[in-house]
Amino acid sequence: MTSEDIVRTFCTSWESRDLAALLGAVSEDLVYQNVPRPPLVGKPAFEAFIGPILAATRAIDFIVKSLATSADGKMVLTERIDRLHYADGTVEVPLMGIFQIEGGLIVRWRDYPDSAHVAAQFAALGGAGGD
Amino acid sequence: MTSEDIVRTFCTSWESRDLAALLGAVSEDLVYQNVPRPPLVGKPAFEAFIGPILAATRAIDFIVKSLATSADGKMVLTERIDRLHYADGTVEVPLMGIFQIEGGLIVRWRDYPDSAHVAAQFAALGGAGGD
Repeated sequence: MTSEDIVRTFCTSWESRDLAALLGAVSEDLVYQNVPRPPLVGKPAFEAFIGPILAATRAIDFIVKSLATSADGKMVLTERIDRLHYADGTVEVPLMGIFQIEGGLIVRWRDYPDSAHVAAQFAALGGAGGD
Repeated sequence: MTSEDIVRTFCTSWESRDLAALLGAVSEDLVYQNVPRPPLVGKPAFEAFIGPILAATRAIDFIVKSLATSADGKMVLTERIDRLHYADGTVEVPLMGIFQIEGGLIVRWRDYPDSAHVAAQFAALGGAGGD
């Protein structure tokens, strides 16, 4: 699989809510950051982050508007719309994200949402979920 | 020039504070958006936005951490650190941005900063500038 294939499959795994596939796509030492928040380090921290999201949502969209791979093949940059559908409403997050690929796995992932925009939507839902 | 060249030159023009070069790089119908804020439409609106930034800052950094061009050559995705240096301090903005190129010009530009992170830094400066 190309780096692009790895990232597109990862996005599809969010939509199919496949926790095993999501965890299988990342390295043990994955660093995930919702910039500018502090990063989450390691696969267990990542699982602790995404498990509740999958549990709390009834559906997830990970819409890739644009995608490009760096010339060296290591970095995949995306512009996306992520939607988290909860029982009482949807949180829609326009964002960009960058994925670093090594040995066929995602080793770094940084997303750039607007945190205030996300928080306002969660507040409107009555605080369900968290982001 | 490739689409990558156009974007890298545009970033360098920010650092050299070259208003003519910045305006020359974009189309008359440029749409610039600081997502999720409403877009600015047209070169005059863009000039009205950037002119005060160039006037209020004493230096600007536009550091490109990663860059990739889409397979069709039209979209250039970047991960950057923008720094606005004012007389009384610096605002540092980690962000991603996407540039659409047509006919050698930037026709769409969308940046994804964390607005609360930026606003907090401006507040610490005493409200100088705006973003």
